[in-house]
Amino acid sequence: MIATRSRRVSRVSVKNNLRVIPIGGLEEVGRNMTVFEYGRDIIIVDMGLQFPEEDMPGIDYIIPNADYLRGKEKNIRGVIITHAHYDHIGAIPHLIPKLGNPTVYATELTRGIIAKRQEEYKNPITIKTVKKIDRLKLRVFDIEFFHVNHTIPDGVGVSIGTPVGTVVVTGDFKFDHSPIADAPADIAKIARIGSEGVLALLSDSTDSQTPGYSLSESTIKKNLDEIFEHTEGRIIAATFSSLISRIQQLIQLSEKYGRKLAIDGYSMRTNVEIARTLGYLEMKKHTLIPINEVNDHPDGKVTIVCTGAQGEDKAVLMRIVNGEHRFVKVHRGDTIIFSSSVVPGNERTVQGLKDGLYRKGAKVIHNEMLDVHAGGHARQEDLKMMINLMRPKYLIPVHGHYYMRRLHADLAEQVGMSLNNVFVGGNGQVIEFDYRGNGKMTEEKAPSSYVMVDGLGVGDIGQVVLRDRQVLARDGMFTIVTIIDSKTKRVIGEPQVTSRGFIYVKENFDLVNATKKKVKDVVHHATSKDEKVNWSYVKDEIRDVVGQFLYSKTERRPMVLPVVIEV
Amino acid sequence: MIATRSRRVSRVSVKNNLRVIPIGGLEEVGRNMTVFEYGRDIIIVDMGLQFPEEDMPGIDYIIPNADYLRGKEKNIRGVIITHAHYDHIGAIPHLIPKLGNPTVYATELTRGIIAKRQEEYKNPITIKTVKKIDRLKLRVFDIEFFHVNHTIPDGVGVSIGTPVGTVVVTGDFKFDHSPIADAPADIAKIARIGSEGVLALLSDSTDSQTPGYSLSESTIKKNLDEIFEHTEGRIIAATFSSLISRIQQLIQLSEKYGRKLAIDGYSMRTNVEIARTLGYLEMKKHTLIPINEVNDHPDGKVTIVCTGAQGEDKAVLMRIVNGEHRFVKVHRGDTIIFSSSVVPGNERTVQGLKDGLYRKGAKVIHNEMLDVHAGGHARQEDLKMMINLMRPKYLIPVHGHYYMRRLHADLAEQVGMSLNNVFVGGNGQVIEFDYRGNGKMTEEKAPSSYVMVDGLGVGDIGQVVLRDRQVLARDGMFTIVTIIDSKTKRVIGEPQVTSRGFIYVKENFDLVNATKKKVKDVVHHATSKDEKVNWSYVKDEIRDVVGQFLYSKTERRPMVLPVVIEV
Repeated sequence: MIATRSRRVSRVSVKNNLRVIPIGGLEEVGRNMTVFEYGRDIIIVDMGLQFPEEDMPGIDYIIPNADYLRGKEKNIRGVIITHAHYDHIGAIPHLIPKLGNPTVYATELTRGIIAKRQEEYKNPITIKTVKKIDRLKLRVFDIEFFHVNHTIPDGVGVSIGTPVGTVVVTGDFKFDHSPIADAPADIAKIARIGSEGVLALLSDSTDSQTPGYSLSESTIKKNLDEIFEHTEGRIIAATFSSLISRIQQLIQLSEKYGRKLAIDGYSMRTNVEIARTLGYLEMKKHTLIPINEVNDHPDGKVTIVCTGAQGEDKAVLMRIVNGEHRFVKVHRGDTIIFSSSVVPGNERTVQGLKDGLYRKGAKVIHNEMLDVHAGGHARQEDLKMMINLMRPKYLIPVHGHYYMRRLHADLAEQVGMSLNNVFVGGNGQVIEFDYRGNGKMTEEKAPSSYVMVDGLGVGDIGQVVLRDRQVLARDGMFTIVTIIDSKTKRVIGEPQVTSRGFIYVKENFDLVNATKKKVKDVVHHATSKDEKVNWSYVKDEIRDVVGQFLYSKTERRPMVLPVVIEV
Repeated sequence: MIATRSRRVSRVSVKNNLRVIPIGGLEEVGRNMTVFEYGRDIIIVDMGLQFPEEDMPGIDYIIPNADYLRGKEKNIRGVIITHAHYDHIGAIPHLIPKLGNPTVYATELTRGIIAKRQEEYKNPITIKTVKKIDRLKLRVFDIEFFHVNHTIPDGVGVSIGTPVGTVVVTGDFKFDHSPIADAPADIAKIARIGSEGVLALLSDSTDSQTPGYSLSESTIKKNLDEIFEHTEGRIIAATFSSLISRIQQLIQLSEKYGRKLAIDGYSMRTNVEIARTLGYLEMKKHTLIPINEVNDHPDGKVTIVCTGAQGEDKAVLMRIVNGEHRFVKVHRGDTIIFSSSVVPGNERTVQGLKDGLYRKGAKVIHNEMLDVHAGGHARQEDLKMMINLMRPKYLIPVHGHYYMRRLHADLAEQVGMSLNNVFVGGNGQVIEFDYRGNGKMTEEKAPSSYVMVDGLGVGDIGQVVLRDRQVLARDGMFTIVTIIDSKTKRVIGEPQVTSRGFIYVKENFDLVNATKKKVKDVVHHATSKDEKVNWSYVKDEIRDVVGQFLYSKTERRPMVLPVVIEV
C-alpha cells in the first residue's frame, strides 16, 4: 500500500477527525446510506430502502434510521446518489424533508427516476444533475465521480476528497468490458484516483461469495439472440423494471428478428419512458407497440417485456399466468424468459409461476438452464481488481450481510491488505480517520434500528405490533366480551365471542359454549368475595383460563382478548 | 417398447379396469399417496405429508385427501411404504385409523421409524416387515420390491403385478454405484422386472430439472474427508435428521481422524438409535459421546452432528447460533458444514444463520462452495436409465410440481417414448388400464383438496380461516364494543376499543377517540328513526365507516370487528 496523500493539506486541523458512519446497508442488502462528517460539514451518500423480512408481515419497507443527524441538519451540505435503484434512492421522500431539505446530487438518469417517484409525494425536493466529469465542491468535501457498470445505466462511484485524505465509495458496481447501451466502467479514472492515494475504500460486497469475474451483458445478449433465432412463437421476457440495459437488448433483438415489442408494468413503463427521453434507450420508430395491440400481430412477430419475474402478486407476469391480464393470455408455444435472478425468499413463488406457465403449454427458460441474466455486482475477481486499482490504506466492505463483508475482507487479505486495515463493523458503527491518515473503528454507535414504513406510518410500528401480527397469523384471535351489572356484579346475558383465524365459530358451538361457561365461572368466583373487584385481575384470569382451555381442546393458541364492561 | 404381458392372465376379467389414482404428490413435493384399484381390491402406496406453503400461516402440515376411499375401506388390502421420509409416511397416524386400520407393509428401517413416530399417537396400527426378496400377495396384487438408493437407507421401489399387467412405482430414488452404508440400487432386478414387461411406470420427478447423473455419496465423503483432514478446530455438521448415510460418513471420518462424535436434535437422535439398533449404522464402541460431554474434549477432537441446516426455529443449529444451546457455544475456529440442500422457501433464514456463524468467528462450508451434500433424487440421466431398464408402455411421472413432471415427460420422449403414452395429469385424476393393456387418463377426478393439520384439528381449517389469518398478519385487528341501552337505544358510556397488530392504542388516543365518535354517530343515526333497529345493519355500517376512517388516516386495513350488545 502506498501512503495516502490529502488533496487539501492546507485545511487540515488536528482537532477534527473524518467520521464515516454507515447508517444502513451493512447488515442487510438494502437501505444503503452513509454519512461523512468533518467538523461542521456533513455529506451523505445514498438513501435507500430495504424490503421487509419474512417476520415483518404487513410492513411495506424499511428505511435507514436518521436519528444521528437530528440537530445537525444545518451541517448537511448535500446528498449524493450513486444510482437509481430503490436500495439507494428509496428513502429520499421520507428522509430529505426531515433533514431540512438538503440538495440531492445525481447523474441525469438517476435524477429522472428520483424526480418521477417524488411526484407521488407532496414535498418538493431539490435535485441537481451532475455529470461524470464534474467536480463538486461541498465545503470541505471535494467530490469526483467515476463511471461504473451495474444493472442500470448512469451509475457512478464517488471519490470524496477530505482534509484527512480521499475516501472512495464504489456504489453498486461491476466491471463490464462489453456492456450494452452503456460504456465500460472508467478504469482509467479509477486508476488515476488510486494513483493519487486513497485513504479508505467503501466497496460493494453483495456478490463477494461468487468466484471469478462478472458476466458481461454481451454474453447474455448472445444467449438471448440464440433464443430469438430459434423461437417461432411469442416471446415474453420478464425482468427487473430498472434493468434498462436488458430491455435495450430485447429491443435490439426484436428489431433484428422483425418483432414488435410491448412493455407492460407501471414501473417498467415509467423507467423506459424516462430512459428514452434522456437518450439512455434507443429504438426505431415503429418497434414499440402498446400492450393492447399485441394481439393484432402474429405470435411470431411479438415480444412482450414485463415485470413480475419474482412472482410478485400484482405484477404483470402473475396476472398473465392467472388469466387476469386484459390483453395477454398465455398461448401454447409461448416462450417465457425469466431474465432475472431470484431474490432470496421468492423461490417458492417463482416455482409456482413456472408451474402455471408449463401447465398452459408455455416453454420456460430461466437462468439455471442458460445464462439469460447477469447480476449487477462485482464478483471476487472484480473486487480484487478494484482494491488493486484503488490501493486504499483502509477497506470498509459495505452493502451486504456480515458474512458477505467478511468474505470481502478475506479477498482483501489475498491481495495483500492487512486485516487490521479492513473494518467489518455493523450499521451505525462510527469509523474515524485522523489528520495523520490513521483510521480506527470506534466504540461509538449511531442509532441504526429499523424504521418501518407501513402505509402512512413511518417508524410507528415496533416489535410489539409485529409480534402481535405474528401471533395473529399463526392461530388467529378470540375476543370474549362480558358485560357486568355494576350493582349485582353478575354477568348480564351471555359473554359474546368474536373469533377470526382460529376455528369456525358456527361449527364449534360446544367449544364456544364451554368457553363462555368458563368465563362466567371466573367472574362469579372473583365477585363472590366481599371485596372490591379487581377487574384487571379478572381480565388476566379470563385470558389465562380461556387460553389454556382452548389449547387443551385444539392445541392452538389464538390471541385471547377479554373485554369486561361494567354497566 | 415391447408389449407388456400380465403375470395373472387367468384372472383377467373384461369387466374390470385397473384404476391408478395418485391422490397426492402430483402438484407438490410432498403428501405422496397413490391408490391402485382393481374390482374390489385396493392397495395404497405411501401416505405422506406436505409442509405448508407461505400463505398458510399456523398450519402444521397438509395430508392427502382420502375421501375417495370412503365406503371402500373394506377393500383396502394393504398399504405399502417405500421409505421412511415424512413425505411418504407422515399421514399414516391420521389416515390409517380412518381407513379401517389396514396393515402397513414396510422394510425394516422404515418400519422402525414409523413405529417410533406412532408412539406419539394413541391408535395402535399394524405394521408388517417385508424383506426386499419377499413376494407379497395381496389378493389380485402380486408385489415385489427392489432396492433403490436414496438419502435414507432401506428404500424400495415396488413392482405390482395386476390382472392387466405390471405397474412399477420407483419411490424416491437415485442410482448410486458407490453408496455409503448401503448397497447400490438393484439394477439387475430392475432389469429383470423390465424384461418381463411393464405396463406402467410411476417414476420420481423431483430432480428432473437437473442434467447429468446423481452425485454419489462417495464423492461427498471424499470432500468431507478433505475438510476433516485440514480442520484443526471443532467440526459441526448440520444435515437432515433422516440422512443416515451422511451421519455414517461423519462417524467413519471422526473415527479416522480421532474425533469423538455427539449427535443432537431429537429426531436425529431417534433415527440414529433406530438405525443403530437395526444394524443400519455402524460405529466403534467409544465414538459416540453425549452432547453434554463435548466440552470435556479438545475442540480438535470433537465432531457434532445436528439438525437445523434449514434454519428451523427451534432446531439445534439455530439454538447454537443464538447462544441458547445448553452445552454448545460457537467457538472461534469452529467449522460448520451445511451438509444439506436448502429447501425452497428457507433461503433467507439460512442466510441469517450463516451470518450469525460468521459473526461469531466460525468458518462455514456449504454446498455452493464444495459438494458436501448429494440430493436423493434421480437426475436426468438416471431417469432415462430407469425408463430404459423398465421399458414401460406408459409412464406416469409422479412426485413433483407440474413442470417437473412435464420435464420428465420430455426425457421419456428423448429415449423414444411417445408423449401419448406419458400421463402428466393432476392430483386425483383417475388413470385406467383395460385388460388389453391400453391405458388412458379419464375425466374422472377423485377429491384431492388440501387437508390441513393444525394442532389437533385435521381438515377443519379452510380457506376462510386462512384468509383471515393473512389479513390479521398484514394489518392486525381492531375490535370496537358498543353497549346500547335497550330502552333508550342510546350508547351507554364510551365504545371500547381493543386493537392488536395495528397501532399502539396508547400512542394514538386522538385516532381512537375520533373512531369512537364515528361509531356513536352511526348508532345515533340508525336509532334516531322511528323504526325497529336492524342491528346487523348497524354492525356492517360500523365496520365500513371505521374501516374507511382508519384507512384514510393510516393507509392500513386492520380487520374491523364491531360488537354491539343491547342491555
